[in-house]
Order: sequence, then structure tokens, then C-alpha cells
Amino acid sequence: MTGPTDRQPLDRRTLARALSRSANATVADILAHWQPPRRGLARRIGITGAPGTGKSTLISRLVRCRLAHADRLGVLAIDPSSPYSRGAILGDRIRMDDVADDDRLFIRSLASRGAHDGTSDNIADLLAVMDAHGFDEVILETVGVGQTEYAVRTLVDTVVLVLIPESGDQIQAMKAGLMEAADIFVVNKCDLPGAGRISSEVRAVLARVHRDDRWQRRVVETSAERASGFEALSAAIMEHQAWTMSRRSEQEVRAARAAHQIKELFSRRVGELVEGELAQRLDRPLPELYAEVLARLATERG
Amino acid sequence: MTGPTDRQPLDRRTLARALSRSANATVADILAHWQPPRRGLARRIGITGAPGTGKSTLISRLVRCRLAHADRLGVLAIDPSSPYSRGAILGDRIRMDDVADDDRLFIRSLASRGAHDGTSDNIADLLAVMDAHGFDEVILETVGVGQTEYAVRTLVDTVVLVLIPESGDQIQAMKAGLMEAADIFVVNKCDLPGAGRISSEVRAVLARVHRDDRWQRRVVETSAERASGFEALSAAIMEHQAWTMSRRSEQEVRAARAAHQIKELFSRRVGELVEGELAQRLDRPLPELYAEVLARLATERG
Repeated sequence: MTGPTDRQPLDRRTLARALSRSANATVADILAHWQPPRRGLARRIGITGAPGTGKSTLISRLVRCRLAHADRLGVLAIDPSSPYSRGAILGDRIRMDDVADDDRLFIRSLASRGAHDGTSDNIADLLAVMDAHGFDEVILETVGVGQTEYAVRTLVDTVVLVLIPESGDQIQAMKAGLMEAADIFVVNKCDLPGAGRISSEVRAVLARVHRDDRWQRRVVETSAERASGFEALSAAIMEHQAWTMSRRSEQEVRAARAAHQIKELFSRRVGELVEGELAQRLDRPLPELYAEVLARLATERG
Repeated sequence: MTGPTDRQPLDRRTLARALSRSANATVADILAHWQPPRRGLARRIGITGAPGTGKSTLISRLVRCRLAHADRLGVLAIDPSSPYSRGAILGDRIRMDDVADDDRLFIRSLASRGAHDGTSDNIADLLAVMDAHGFDEVILETVGVGQTEYAVRTLVDTVVLVLIPESGDQIQAMKAGLMEAADIFVVNKCDLPGAGRISSEVRAVLARVHRDDRWQRRVVETSAERASGFEALSAAIMEHQAWTMSRRSEQEVRAARAAHQIKELFSRRVGELVEGELAQRLDRPLPELYAEVLARLATERG
């Protein structure tokens, strides 16, 4: 999707400021400060899974593999309990010291802002900021079971769902549809007992749960303890990226991202108007209320 | 929330037409045909759960109990596989013959329309139609695991989650947050082995998962086979209704429902504009796109 071009050096301070601003911005702010992407669009990898599945440690290992394929790599963690701080993973025995100072890497942890679907309602804005700063690839870490995977699906190109050997019970519940949402399944902490069984269970469910797009979903076992599986995960991600790129043009990706962001911005602004300015007067007829929200939106134009 | 007043007889044909129209209506249609509720608002009960948990049969039993407390009772099933047809539950050994002809009962099954959260994006409109037709109580049946419960939460007053003895694995996965979404937990098919164990598991999880509003969540065992538990379920629902009414005025409920419906209508209209009319031209700068959607919306006013 991207290739090396006449790239400007990454201005880390400007980027950090832009992300902070976006994280708390009003819709008007977002539009006022919007900048077109300087170059192609970043490939987006979503890493999601329940709390305790070791997503952050997994990402610190994955980052090392991905730096071989990305001159500018970003990590955004949307997680209230995220252990990232200043480019390091806190509480992790193997700190990211060997990559934290790498000029090509930018890591940022952002607290989630209340969207009902378990993700922030402004992740699209944050990812757009990354696009505008010329990243080759962005890893988005989100926490959650269930509804989150659906939301992440629309935001990223490749969805990686992280499970652990104790997740057995979860797999049964996921039959209903969650298995459709992920492209790659990671059985992390595969040094723990039961890892083989869980991989088999995932494969068995995948064999039964049909997916329309014919992508052959992968199951990868990883272990930070044994330092194994991360190259295989990286390879699986690249297979999926290549497959995705063969099916969608950059133009289509760009349009889908813009469409999603526009819808989120309107939804947020209408929510603000209804919950804030109109909240006292919601007992009027619906058509009148609709017209009033429309009128208020329209006065903000220009 | 409501009481007997100078009630007009239910015009079943008009209501059926209004629901069909709403199910397929554009936003402009909804607003053009909107009518204010004739009297108080219907109490809303959401019944949700995975496929195969016996929701429809449970509802047919529950309906008999609820008719003792509602002069006008509605059932809306949003479920592609719903077995309701002309007031009867197909494939059910005990048909609803004894209640199907009851003038006080209105049952309607509607196919789900693609909202990404597993519910229709127009359920708020359908429920508003029921409000306008003077129902005392409406039972909303939705199917799903996970994301659906969150969406239903904003639409109804009381959320009932239906589990069965085989749902054990699901309960583990629900720990992360789904247990917060339901007010009453039903272990249906409690004649099957393992029912006691599952009730205990639910209670154990509830004891650990805190809920801010201090409602003491109930666990009720039901069995259509043994014709047991449905009065207890009905009683638990009434306890929750009384508790809810003590905390919110009818005015607040009405405002919340209007707010939700307004937000859904805008979100749907913006989605249509972006995906339909603008889809070819999404490669322009975001602020320009936003302004254009706004301009299009504004021309529809009046």
C-alpha cells in the first residue's frame, strides 16, 4: 500500500500533540486541524483479546519482527490498564529497551473514551492522525471480549485475536459469530498446559464457521517465555496484508476509512447536541426535535 | 408508568401496517408518519440470549402471566429464525392457541435489518410505534451473544438474559462485562442436567461483578417441560419495573427514548448519504466531505 518516498523525518513532538488533541477534541477541532496524509496509507493491524492474555508483551515481541518491514511503525494502545509508558512496557520482565529508542518506532497509550461498544468513539480520528504522519504500519491494541472485535473490524485491515490456554470456555461462546471477526488467531503463552488443545479447538470451530471472503484463517502459537512464534505471527500478518491488498485498491481503503470517520464524527456531534444542548427539551414531538438538531448542525457549517 | 384511561380499541390492521412501514421506512418516512403516543409509555422487557436457548417458547409462557398485568400486551421478535407466525409459535408442541386469539395480545415477528451490532438499526422506531398505539407492555425478543445485550440495554427497561444448562462455557466468557448488561438471568430448560450448577455459577459471577445501580440481579429457573418458573420470572420482572419506576420519572423515560431514536435516525441518514450518494467521491478532504453531508442533510429539512 505504501512505498518509500521523499519522506520527511517524523516529528515526534508534533505527532504526540496531534494525538492528544485528537483524543479530547470536539468534532469542530478535528475538522479544523485535519491534514491530508502526506503519503500512502498505513497498514493497520488490530490486536485484541480479553484482559490477561498478554497482548502488550506479545506486541513488544511483534514490533521487533515488524520493524524489518516498516520504516515507520506505530503502536496505539486503547486500554485503560495499558502498561506502556514512554516507549517501554511496564511490569514486563523483558523491557523494550532494545527497540524503545528506535527512531522508527512510535508507541502511544491512550485511555479509552466512553463508546458503548467497548472501543473509543474516536479511534478513527487517532488512526487518521497516524496516516497523516506517514506511518507504514500501525498496530492498534484494544481490550475486550465480544462487541469490541466487531468495532475493530471496521477500523483495521487485519484483526488478530489473542487467546491463552485458559480461554477454552470462551471459544465455545465465540461460536455464535465472533470467530468470523478475526483473521488470525494467536494462542499466546503456549508454554502453558492446554495450549495444544486450545489450538485444536479453534481450528475445529474455524472449520465449521464459514466466512464469505474465503480468507484461510490462521492459528499461530506464541510464547514470550520461549521467545517463539512471533516470526510466524508476523508472516501470517503479511500473508493477510498481501491477500487484502490484492482485493482492494488503496483508493477503496482510503474511501472506506473516510466514510467510517465521517459517520463517527456525525454520530458524536449529534450525540453531543442531543445529550447536552437539547437534553432539557426532549419532550417535544420527534419531527420537531430532528429538525432542531439539523438546524443546530447547519449553523456550525463553514 | 401507565394506567387505564379512555382507551381506544386497538386497530390491529393499522398497527400492523405502521410496523411494516417503519421496518422499511426511510428517515423522512419515519418523521412524516410519526404520531405522538396516545397515552403513557409501554413498559419494555427485552428477552435476549443465544440461539437454541428456547426464548420463543419461554415468551409464549411468559405472555400468559403478563396478561394478568397488561390490558394491551405486545411481542416484537427481531430474529431471522423467529418461529412466530400469525400469533402462534411454529414448531412448539404447546401452541399459543389459548392466547393467540386474545384481543389484548399482539405478536409480530420482524426480520432483522443490518445493523453491525446484531440488532436492527430501526428497533427504536418499531418500539415508538408500539408506544403510539397505547400498549401497556412490550416484550422485545432479540437473538445474540455479546454485543446485542449492550444495544438492547438502551432500548428497554428490563433486560432478561436466557441461558440453558449447556451455557456453562458462555458464563466464563461473560465475566468480562456482559453480566452487567442484564437485570434478570433465566436458566431455561431447567429440567435438563446441570441446571443447578449453572444457576450457582451465574450467582457466583454476579457476586463478583459489581453494578453501580445497586439493583439486586435475580436468577430464575424455568422449564416449559415442567411448566414451572414463569410466574417467578414474571414476578422478578415486576420487581425490576417497580424499582426502575422509583428511580426515573415517565418524563425521563420519554426523553431517553426520544434521544435514542433521534441519534439512530441521524446515524442511519448519514450512513445512507455517505454510502450511497457520496460513495463515488470519498477521496476528498475530510472537512469538505463533512460539510457536504451537512449540506445535504440541511436541504432535507422542512
